[in-house]
Amino acid sequence: MTSERVVWLPYPDLETAEAAVGELPEGVRFEPWVKATELPESVADVEFAVVPYMTSTEALDRAGEMTSLKVLQLQSAGFENVLPRVPDGVTLCNGGGIHDTSTAELAIALALASGRRLDRFARQQADRQWAPAWGRSLADQHVGILGYGRIGQAIEARLAGFEVASVTRFARRPRTEPEVLAVDELADRLPRITVLFVITPLTDQTEGLLDAAMLARLPDDALVVNVSRGKVVDTDALLAETSSGRLSAALDVVDPEPLPADHPLWDVPNVVLAPHVGGYSSAFEPRRDRLVAAQLRRFAAGEPLENVVN
Amino acid sequence: MTSERVVWLPYPDLETAEAAVGELPEGVRFEPWVKATELPESVADVEFAVVPYMTSTEALDRAGEMTSLKVLQLQSAGFENVLPRVPDGVTLCNGGGIHDTSTAELAIALALASGRRLDRFARQQADRQWAPAWGRSLADQHVGILGYGRIGQAIEARLAGFEVASVTRFARRPRTEPEVLAVDELADRLPRITVLFVITPLTDQTEGLLDAAMLARLPDDALVVNVSRGKVVDTDALLAETSSGRLSAALDVVDPEPLPADHPLWDVPNVVLAPHVGGYSSAFEPRRDRLVAAQLRRFAAGEPLENVVN
Repeated sequence: MTSERVVWLPYPDLETAEAAVGELPEGVRFEPWVKATELPESVADVEFAVVPYMTSTEALDRAGEMTSLKVLQLQSAGFENVLPRVPDGVTLCNGGGIHDTSTAELAIALALASGRRLDRFARQQADRQWAPAWGRSLADQHVGILGYGRIGQAIEARLAGFEVASVTRFARRPRTEPEVLAVDELADRLPRITVLFVITPLTDQTEGLLDAAMLARLPDDALVVNVSRGKVVDTDALLAETSSGRLSAALDVVDPEPLPADHPLWDVPNVVLAPHVGGYSSAFEPRRDRLVAAQLRRFAAGEPLENVVN
Repeated sequence: MTSERVVWLPYPDLETAEAAVGELPEGVRFEPWVKATELPESVADVEFAVVPYMTSTEALDRAGEMTSLKVLQLQSAGFENVLPRVPDGVTLCNGGGIHDTSTAELAIALALASGRRLDRFARQQADRQWAPAWGRSLADQHVGILGYGRIGQAIEARLAGFEVASVTRFARRPRTEPEVLAVDELADRLPRITVLFVITPLTDQTEGLLDAAMLARLPDDALVVNVSRGKVVDTDALLAETSSGRLSAALDVVDPEPLPADHPLWDVPNVVLAPHVGGYSSAFEPRRDRLVAAQLRRFAAGEPLENVVN
């Protein structure tokens, strides 16, 4: 018998684990959990488990055997698919915060790429064609941020140096300092917004929020940047507004996803598409490691965990 | 005879001019100068002239006829080609500051596009191909800024929100607050720089500054972003380092320019190319108009001008 508490972390060996999260707390015993379906033998002893990335659902197929489990830590922000598989009494923590940096950065990258025509230049490069084109600068734009959680705030932080003319924030709950408007003011404000960042969570209230009527309220030449979920925007309505050339869009997420090869959105000149890579960057691992280290320390010390979602 | 002083501004009519620069100062008479080779009839009377954009050399073919000329205001930052054509006794002012916003923004756009693979996604979009790829975030990078004039500072301002690990600045003259290193420290510092922004002016000292030996000092996977002049970098050396996959580059300027269709740089997967569009954006006109307005006001009031280069 041992008094050590078993923890499963997403690193192949102890050396890698300690390089990532520092020396492990006293009293915990590390086991690697790197492939969702390959559970360590200590399945009945594990108390704290970090679920391998992008594989949460299949990783929990054998959750019923984790009879000592106290904490499940996800690496994703989303947890809806996992929740039904979490055994009673187990604390579920999401990866909130891990992806903010990467996703906010991509939002700015997409806005800049669309404005400065980098998609066009990339295709010209493939054709060995040197053809300058006038760009629309992010400077002087009236920016809207729809969804003002951590990623919305991280987008605003990145806008700081870009000389934008104004920033208008929208969230479910209005608040002050900084001023955040209620989403039900969106329709009134859209006519003065020239670049709209969409990072609201997908809920019953936000599904289809940017429909034909709402998009029609944006001024000519406005840009819609979506890094949240495709279903927040009515794809057919956006297709109509971008195909006509009235609006531009830069989208990391679409509906449906992956975008089918025969979908007309692929071909719209005013649309920049990225294949849902908001969280897919080198910014991920250091932030994942910091969260794992902090949560593990709290677990070992018996302190309250962060990012608890159940 | 009139006491009014004739000014030529780059706007087609008075209404457009006043919309751009506000009410004209007392005592000046506006004439439009919008096409380089079409000089207004008041050629012998003009005292203050803003040279049409991108056409400074041919615009000054008849400078000898501008016998009352006191001030020539350029819209470009560069003035070397114009200087020999400026009549004696005429004050030449460049467009310094007009292009900072647009160029610094493009530098960030190129760094983000390269890191987050937006060039690849743009080409995949043309092929209707949904294929996520891991990106290299600007967050956590050790940034170098080679050239710390106004655009170098504007690049740093834009980095503020991006969680970069460090910024090291290099200029001809070292200084403090913030610390700016002398360019002769570049070789020593390059091994710790992972994203290098190049915005130094092209001079005898900087031509070929980033040669094979210097590029070799950058760590593996470093990114070179050039928004200054192509000749600051040894193209063959950069081609070798990017073709091998060791370095990446994102270039708004190359040597030679335009890049010939048969140049091997077009095809390097780690190279993102833009066709010298640093100043080519909507940020240009408002800043040009503000400079013209301020200089015209100073001229009319008999105050010292800014951006004097001769």
